[in-house]
Amino acid sequence: MLMSSSDYRESLRRFRPTVFVNGRRVDSVADDAALAPGLNAIGLTYDFARDPQHAPLMLATQASSGCTVNRLLHIDATTTDLLYKLEAVRLLCRHSGCAQRYLTHDALNAIWQATHRIDADESTDYHERFLAYLHEVQDADLTLGVAMTDAKGDRSKRPHEQTVPDSHVRIVERRADGIVIRGTKAIVTGAPYVHGFLVMPGRSMEEADAAFAVCCAVPLDAPGITIVARPAGRPGENGAKFSGRYGQSTGVVLFDDVFVPHERVFLAGEWAHAGFLAATYATHHRHSCIGARAGFGDLLIGAGVLMSEANGLDPGQHGHIRDAMVELIKIVEGFFACGVAASVYGFKDGSGNIQPDAVFSNVGKLLLATQIYDMQRLAHYVSGGLVVALPGPDEDHNPATAASLAAVLAGRPDIPAAQRLEVARLLEDLTASYSAGWYSVISLHGGGSPEAMKREIWRQYPVADKVALVEGLLERGVAADSARPRDKQPGRCCVTGCTVPEAPAATR
Amino acid sequence: MLMSSSDYRESLRRFRPTVFVNGRRVDSVADDAALAPGLNAIGLTYDFARDPQHAPLMLATQASSGCTVNRLLHIDATTTDLLYKLEAVRLLCRHSGCAQRYLTHDALNAIWQATHRIDADESTDYHERFLAYLHEVQDADLTLGVAMTDAKGDRSKRPHEQTVPDSHVRIVERRADGIVIRGTKAIVTGAPYVHGFLVMPGRSMEEADAAFAVCCAVPLDAPGITIVARPAGRPGENGAKFSGRYGQSTGVVLFDDVFVPHERVFLAGEWAHAGFLAATYATHHRHSCIGARAGFGDLLIGAGVLMSEANGLDPGQHGHIRDAMVELIKIVEGFFACGVAASVYGFKDGSGNIQPDAVFSNVGKLLLATQIYDMQRLAHYVSGGLVVALPGPDEDHNPATAASLAAVLAGRPDIPAAQRLEVARLLEDLTASYSAGWYSVISLHGGGSPEAMKREIWRQYPVADKVALVEGLLERGVAADSARPRDKQPGRCCVTGCTVPEAPAATR
Amino acid sequence: MLMSSSDYRESLRRFRPTVFVNGRRVDSVADDAALAPGLNAIGLTYDFARDPQHAPLMLATQASSGCTVNRLLHIDATTTDLLYKLEAVRLLCRHSGCAQRYLTHDALNAIWQATHRIDADESTDYHERFLAYLHEVQDADLTLGVAMTDAKGDRSKRPHEQTVPDSHVRIVERRADGIVIRGTKAIVTGAPYVHGFLVMPGRSMEEADAAFAVCCAVPLDAPGITIVARPAGRPGENGAKFSGRYGQSTGVVLFDDVFVPHERVFLAGEWAHAGFLAATYATHHRHSCIGARAGFGDLLIGAGVLMSEANGLDPGQHGHIRDAMVELIKIVEGFFACGVAASVYGFKDGSGNIQPDAVFSNVGKLLLATQIYDMQRLAHYVSGGLVVALPGPDEDHNPATAASLAAVLAGRPDIPAAQRLEVARLLEDLTASYSAGWYSVISLHGGGSPEAMKREIWRQYPVADKVALVEGLLERGVAADSARPRDKQPGRCCVTGCTVPEAPAATR
Amino acid sequence: MLMSSSDYRESLRRFRPTVFVNGRRVDSVADDAALAPGLNAIGLTYDFARDPQHAPLMLATQASSGCTVNRLLHIDATTTDLLYKLEAVRLLCRHSGCAQRYLTHDALNAIWQATHRIDADESTDYHERFLAYLHEVQDADLTLGVAMTDAKGDRSKRPHEQTVPDSHVRIVERRADGIVIRGTKAIVTGAPYVHGFLVMPGRSMEEADAAFAVCCAVPLDAPGITIVARPAGRPGENGAKFSGRYGQSTGVVLFDDVFVPHERVFLAGEWAHAGFLAATYATHHRHSCIGARAGFGDLLIGAGVLMSEANGLDPGQHGHIRDAMVELIKIVEGFFACGVAASVYGFKDGSGNIQPDAVFSNVGKLLLATQIYDMQRLAHYVSGGLVVALPGPDEDHNPATAASLAAVLAGRPDIPAAQRLEVARLLEDLTASYSAGWYSVISLHGGGSPEAMKREIWRQYPVADKVALVEGLLERGVAADSARPRDKQPGRCCVTGCTVPEAPAATR
Repeated sequence: MLMSSSDYRESLRRFRPTVFVNGRRVDSVADDAALAPGLNAIGLTYDFARDPQHAPLMLATQASSGCTVNRLLHIDATTTDLLYKLEAVRLLCRHSGCAQRYLTHDALNAIWQATHRIDADESTDYHERFLAYLHEVQDADLTLGVAMTDAKGDRSKRPHEQTVPDSHVRIVERRADGIVIRGTKAIVTGAPYVHGFLVMPGRSMEEADAAFAVCCAVPLDAPGITIVARPAGRPGENGAKFSGRYGQSTGVVLFDDVFVPHERVFLAGEWAHAGFLAATYATHHRHSCIGARAGFGDLLIGAGVLMSEANGLDPGQHGHIRDAMVELIKIVEGFFACGVAASVYGFKDGSGNIQPDAVFSNVGKLLLATQIYDMQRLAHYVSGGLVVALPGPDEDHNPATAASLAAVLAGRPDIPAAQRLEVARLLEDLTASYSAGWYSVISLHGGGSPEAMKREIWRQYPVADKVALVEGLLERGVAADSARPRDKQPGRCCVTGCTVPEAPAATR
Repeated sequence: MLMSSSDYRESLRRFRPTVFVNGRRVDSVADDAALAPGLNAIGLTYDFARDPQHAPLMLATQASSGCTVNRLLHIDATTTDLLYKLEAVRLLCRHSGCAQRYLTHDALNAIWQATHRIDADESTDYHERFLAYLHEVQDADLTLGVAMTDAKGDRSKRPHEQTVPDSHVRIVERRADGIVIRGTKAIVTGAPYVHGFLVMPGRSMEEADAAFAVCCAVPLDAPGITIVARPAGRPGENGAKFSGRYGQSTGVVLFDDVFVPHERVFLAGEWAHAGFLAATYATHHRHSCIGARAGFGDLLIGAGVLMSEANGLDPGQHGHIRDAMVELIKIVEGFFACGVAASVYGFKDGSGNIQPDAVFSNVGKLLLATQIYDMQRLAHYVSGGLVVALPGPDEDHNPATAASLAAVLAGRPDIPAAQRLEVARLLEDLTASYSAGWYSVISLHGGGSPEAMKREIWRQYPVADKVALVEGLLERGVAADSARPRDKQPGRCCVTGCTVPEAPAATR
Repeated sequence: MLMSSSDYRESLRRFRPTVFVNGRRVDSVADDAALAPGLNAIGLTYDFARDPQHAPLMLATQASSGCTVNRLLHIDATTTDLLYKLEAVRLLCRHSGCAQRYLTHDALNAIWQATHRIDADESTDYHERFLAYLHEVQDADLTLGVAMTDAKGDRSKRPHEQTVPDSHVRIVERRADGIVIRGTKAIVTGAPYVHGFLVMPGRSMEEADAAFAVCCAVPLDAPGITIVARPAGRPGENGAKFSGRYGQSTGVVLFDDVFVPHERVFLAGEWAHAGFLAATYATHHRHSCIGARAGFGDLLIGAGVLMSEANGLDPGQHGHIRDAMVELIKIVEGFFACGVAASVYGFKDGSGNIQPDAVFSNVGKLLLATQIYDMQRLAHYVSGGLVVALPGPDEDHNPATAASLAAVLAGRPDIPAAQRLEVARLLEDLTASYSAGWYSVISLHGGGSPEAMKREIWRQYPVADKVALVEGLLERGVAADSARPRDKQPGRCCVTGCTVPEAPAATR
Repeated sequence: MLMSSSDYRESLRRFRPTVFVNGRRVDSVADDAALAPGLNAIGLTYDFARDPQHAPLMLATQASSGCTVNRLLHIDATTTDLLYKLEAVRLLCRHSGCAQRYLTHDALNAIWQATHRIDADESTDYHERFLAYLHEVQDADLTLGVAMTDAKGDRSKRPHEQTVPDSHVRIVERRADGIVIRGTKAIVTGAPYVHGFLVMPGRSMEEADAAFAVCCAVPLDAPGITIVARPAGRPGENGAKFSGRYGQSTGVVLFDDVFVPHERVFLAGEWAHAGFLAATYATHHRHSCIGARAGFGDLLIGAGVLMSEANGLDPGQHGHIRDAMVELIKIVEGFFACGVAASVYGFKDGSGNIQPDAVFSNVGKLLLATQIYDMQRLAHYVSGGLVVALPGPDEDHNPATAASLAAVLAGRPDIPAAQRLEVARLLEDLTASYSAGWYSVISLHGGGSPEAMKREIWRQYPVADKVALVEGLLERGVAADSARPRDKQPGRCCVTGCTVPEAPAATR
């Protein structure tokens, strides 16, 4: 079943979650104005999947069931799947800013891999449980939030060392039929308007942290769950034409002794595997983030050109404007290329799915994490100072000033002032408002901090190959590709030239 | 007379300006909540001047009158004046974000220089008129807005070529007792709550643009003036604790046939001098901007350290946090140093005042213009994602959640959650809100676009000296400092080593 | 026939070219010490092609003949071909620094496309001529130099406007059996040790430049050709262990009325096509450059790790060293990813071959052009100052000092001083010598200046799509993918989400 | 006495040092071609001091003696001294590339401060000994090398932990009349052609490292000293017109039980003071480096303009060239400004001299350390690829090619080819040769690695002031300058606005 955005909205009415927004209890998440932009954005992922023109990108066939599913619920089986997912995310985000639902995809794929691996090591049956759950999710076309980032408390301490144990989610009781979890997940994107949560461990664990090594699925309104969320985007804010339509809510999710039945538990104490699950999720997610922010980049590129044209400065004619536009394109396509490369060099996991190459995924995410600020700068550069200095939309209907302002605030004669102001306000919304801050910070810290990505790149890079190359060169006067035993890095050896690389298919 | 902030507020009540904010007519600018943050910020420039501890920085003696005046109304006479002004602006802006009144200083100094020069060339008496006006302004301790940036229309065309003549302010009538001006100044900082405007030409002019070459002073409520402004900062916005107290309004100022008596006119058609006036103002202003943004940097540095400490990550212990803090310091002190150098190498103008070195002023402003985005990035980097994901202040008093959140949102055990949240919200206000966008865009485009600064650097740099150096080296096997006639660049020859540099005084 | 490096060397002995190096006439290019590093580097492209382990990357099947050919002589037919060529170039250059022969590939592919297009437009038979020539080249396994960059003269003037006509190569006579060309190509990589030259137009032409629109093939020793070259690398230089073995010569090639028979002429006056040929070559070549410099990056990464380890600073333990290594990896894999994306989004030309996507190729080349300097910086950063301060190799055998130095110049106790010095000297050779300068400048300007790449990116980017996206969003409250007619950009629409993207094949 | 360069050369003939260059024993350092560029560069510091036009910068009056001395031997007493020293170094280095002798200045000032402080703490008489020595040095107008950087061995270990004790210089014997030192200083600039060495501790020490805490002066030819050096610059290299005239040698200095009499010992075991001495030297030296590299920047700026003009691309007309030139200027004047600010905010030490502000000195050095690579890039950018591809100077006299090349290698018609080639070769020498590598690495690592500078900035910055500012703001709704006890950072409180800043003198 592929729901429409209306179906999705309707489906949320079946839940009775405890949600607060700005200190106010929300009666119906499906009908609350403060959350509407969030539902609209996720709604797009439903409607696009039913639109035939988007079918190749938005639909996929789940191998384990043979069913056609939304790509954001699909377990990737080929490098093409990875590339299409990347493109699908870019497509959705260029229309909605950030469509959020790819988080569901990223967690499903990671749990698929991790449960397979845990079962092999620990003789558990998590993967089978998960498979059943996955098919349910796909059949019902659900959206799941990822409850991963713990409140953390003192960041210099490990989970079990915290003064306040509720700063992390953990198992507090094991019952015959399931487990009871407790604690806080601090930043859950889309928390109020998903069908349920995938609770994930936020980091690698040591034995003393075993209780914190927990992964499970819980419905949005499971008893004991309280969601404290922000409005999605800037609903109702004057001038926020875009962020008033599409936006993202983040919520703190408090788990107050929530019971989870066994069939929804996918990790429960096997602490040695928490790190793998977290890292694998991070790789899938960073790959998705690349597509998402490229879509955001498309918006800035289009708006930047429109604004500079309205100012009378055609980028084709004015070198310094063109230069800035090319810099913006260079940034966006530069990190997007890393997503493409991560797809092409995807690594076939033992569990049967495919994982984007970790080095390229992390490099791409790292590039966008810091360069989102440059993207904002370049959009401002080509647009001029009016973006933050323009009278607000309330002024448009002031009889005392409207006509005068309309006359003098036009730029190029053939572009009416109203059109110029509209672009300027879109740019303000995207680059000089809370939304701008949200996009920046979420790009920087979402999916792990830059420092975490750097450590992962170092851990995954085939450093030994490069060292062997140079050692061979020094020792024998000719570099060798086999001078010393290599790191066996999944999917990376190709780039180092030692085996045949993955092949993209011929052009159609 | 040195007014207090109360005096300043009271003084504004004597005006009856036509001001609209968000489409609403403002009854009393002194009492309008939407403008209060602007009055508070400018008020600080009055109160600090009366605070003995700040006297050395905030007060100066006007040479032409012997009077003690607010430094922001002072005509600089020494390199020390320049340095103290720079420090004074940094001081004010680290407390208020942006104290705006330095614009008055920058324009007064530029008009001082330009009128002296015009009189010499054109046998006019502008300087004398200006001197009388200056003393009035100083005696009354006024704040003046700078009405310089025209609406511009099609930016690829000159003023006289515009389809809509009102896109620029110009002289439309010359009367026996004065002139009548008409047109639009599009971005006037602090417009609603200043005592009057200094109308300035926004660029260099050609003969056909002569009517646009106009500089004069008009009171805030001169007949024919309409001000269409934004709120100052984020008044009344929840969570905007800082920007709700201090902020800046920008306004469009419409001049609908405004009469200006001769004694308030300082340029009226002498088009060849418009460029000098604009460029000189730009140099003074860019120098001031350096101090202003360094003050903003102080806020980010302090808040960044507090936030990372609250997270449990002491920069002294965690290399990647320290690295980011040092990068932030490097940026702030790096561009501030350009302001110091511009002071030391200040150029004594023929009119008796001193102008900051143009190359250092422009380099410093150019550095801050682009690096403000890096400053935001670094503040986010050290602070973590919570900055945009934290529940809003309304949640603090929600009995259903407040206690739980307070327990789990603490970081380091000895720092209460409330304190951590307060810093996080300050950071959101400064770096992830409309205020953040305002600071960024105003840093990038305020005082001229980066492209304008680059052209000015090229125009002012002693390129010929450097060429002569290398030519001497190539020709005679030894570089020469006198190989070919040099550019006579004001104040710059020192840096090239050809004459004795300015000397900073010995340490006290 | 696939020649070995010995065969290649031998084959050069059949030519009698006029070659000068450092003012000295070269008797035999195959035997001249000053050119040996160049022959070694190109020789690698022969030997690797005969090495079974490299066969998948180094060999390809030419569709038009069914023959197996060296990949550097192959006309690419699939996106896989592009990816394998990219990998092959990286492989070769990580062993040789720069293997140069990919230039042959780039020109052959461009001429293939251009001749097909010219024939269609002008009813000429260039493509057939070229096909015959191509097969000859492939059968004989030749290496061809690309004579494209004219001496240029005054760069602000077009070819036909130059005071010195010989600053550009042009047709000076048309005979019944061919043409006569004259003029100067200023920077021809590998000029002295190739089998012949592909003369290419260096830019787009206007009608007045028609004589300069010439493309043809000439043997190395065609009468009238004089080659004035630099030594290849740093032959015989003490301490240049790597650049003494592998290096590149660049030469000025003077054409003094050189006759070219018709069957070797592929463009002769059809000025409107010169720009296409030049731009197409540039796209192929920039794509190759990405692979080449990634190979150079592999050398720096390996050497950097070895050096920091020898200093006692394991990157895994010392955060600031790891940070620099990750930055280096980020740069190298970041631009390499653009090469991968350019392959995946390759554009099937009407002539039957495939061209790398122009935007990704140019973005990747632009990234490496400027970041090669950062690569050098990072290599220095992790290595320490010893790289330029170490006593030279002559000191190693000084009985008065050798023992003392060996004792004190070791770093980590388990790594002998000799080994540390060897890595340090390799780093000096690669990053602090003429070779370093060569790699930097050739990265920056080779294949066109950054400004040229920026203009090409702007020309090729689907700007109209992005504008339509935002216009749709503003007009109808929902962004559209079909709001206004799109640019039909070859191979780029996929990235914008409008049609199904190219698909990389499933993992093997 | 102020020696001339001839006197200096002659004075070196009185020494009989043990010097090896490239494995060859040097008979007379004053007459060895391999060292001539070094003597020329230092010679300039003598001749300029006797040139009346440079007197204000090059001479100073030593307060303790009343004598006029070379500024590079002067103990700074005022902020003006600091600024003049900075300018003097820039002047010398724009003529010589790097005049090296400022190292003497930096060490003398640091030892002045440190001996004063040690005496106060330890009741020693080092300062008096040093004063006598200083006057001798000034009277004889000597040049001293700074032997500071130990060979270091395993960099992850402290001095006393090293396997090879000779990797660091230390006291091995204490005699009645002096001490005996032993070990290796690995990178001593100008080692072969100075009059003696100031042996300095390379880092802070712990008690176990007490033997390594040694500072003393030894003559060049003290028994037991062996110097193993590189040639200075690129003597005798074809095409190295500049680096063949001026250059720098670095040497390893082996101390094989060298006796130092008490009156030349300034630190001998007082380990707690080693860190202060090292850090103080570093601050003086980093300040000098700023002037030095600004002088190098002057060369690049001049050469870049000459080259782009010769190519026919006037920066005034071609935006992308001007943009690159302005970027180059921005870098050079941007870090030079930090040197100016460090002078203005200089800190009066208890010993009576003045020390540049540590934060500004380190920020400036850090900026140049990384941006030297950008300077090289920009010089290449404006110059074009010919810089590394041009036929070498031997070709100029080849009768077979000289005339043709001269004709076609000209650029702008009014600039002869010979002149263009000369500039191109200068650029190759400065930016694409071993000299380029030397300037880059020495900028990056000279005076301490970037990591060391970052730590020093963090240590010296008045972080507590900024924290107090924000705390005051949060607590009391208004920021305070006295909210909590401040760090008492020497010379920095001014920048934070809390006390009156140093005042540069009025313009002359």
